[in-house]
Amino acid sequence: MSLTYAFGKNTIFSSQIFMYSKYCFGFVNLKPVLPGHVLVASFRVVQRFSDLTSEEVSDMYISAQKIGKIVEREYNGTSLSLVMQDGPEAGQTVPHCHVHIIPRKVGDFVENDDIYKEINKSTRVDNEEREPRSLEEMDKEATHLRQFF
Amino acid sequence: MSLTYAFGKNTIFSSQIFMYSKYCFGFVNLKPVLPGHVLVASFRVVQRFSDLTSEEVSDMYISAQKIGKIVEREYNGTSLSLVMQDGPEAGQTVPHCHVHIIPRKVGDFVENDDIYKEINKSTRVDNEEREPRSLEEMDKEATHLRQFF
Repeated sequence: MSLTYAFGKNTIFSSQIFMYSKYCFGFVNLKPVLPGHVLVASFRVVQRFSDLTSEEVSDMYISAQKIGKIVEREYNGTSLSLVMQDGPEAGQTVPHCHVHIIPRKVGDFVENDDIYKEINKSTRVDNEEREPRSLEEMDKEATHLRQFF
Repeated sequence: MSLTYAFGKNTIFSSQIFMYSKYCFGFVNLKPVLPGHVLVASFRVVQRFSDLTSEEVSDMYISAQKIGKIVEREYNGTSLSLVMQDGPEAGQTVPHCHVHIIPRKVGDFVENDDIYKEINKSTRVDNEEREPRSLEEMDKEATHLRQFF
């Protein structure tokens, strides 16, 4: 049995969550574009970055900084992409403010920024191009990451 | 006469800066990928996001939130892209931690995420593909934005 959270039309199981801060939670991705691609979202369901309070903004990005250090190290990255698609015209597909945190390394995409094309698909359950991961796989990843927070 | 700041190999003139916060400054772009594409950088010259203190992280993103609201409105956007290329393998070309803030609207790129290919070039003076703007043009834009901060 597992608690669940709504994330747009998606369901996040508590077993996918590896970090809770005061205002945000970090969770592993159903369809990561690269290994270690995780998300941090506000507890409060608001669509736009401008809807967050200053305290929530601080907490979200201090959390993103912490998470970034961990996933870069754990997935042998040498850089990080930190991306917020803030609104539909920026590629946001889930109307719940969140940051993508993605470990990067040399050669991870043939053309470095093909990654951004992939991000748009990463939070959509209805994306048929990538196979969704199993709950077991996500649970295992979250369990590994959880020890660092 | 104008004060100047180093931003990697680039020179930022004080006339390009439209916002100062406690730890960061916001400035207009030599080669914006879209109208209203601006940057916010830490005063302290550090390369990686992980090099920032929590206070700097908070200040940078609270500043980015404020700046985003203004540029989205002033450039008739309906969304925002907020992107940090944190390290060379994420496309960072200037080794000084900064966030790209880009107003977005329907149809601004033929393929929505072609924007990310452009971002890599946007902070390079040596990029020959886009014409650098004149100081006069950047000064005019910064003067307009400065009134909102």
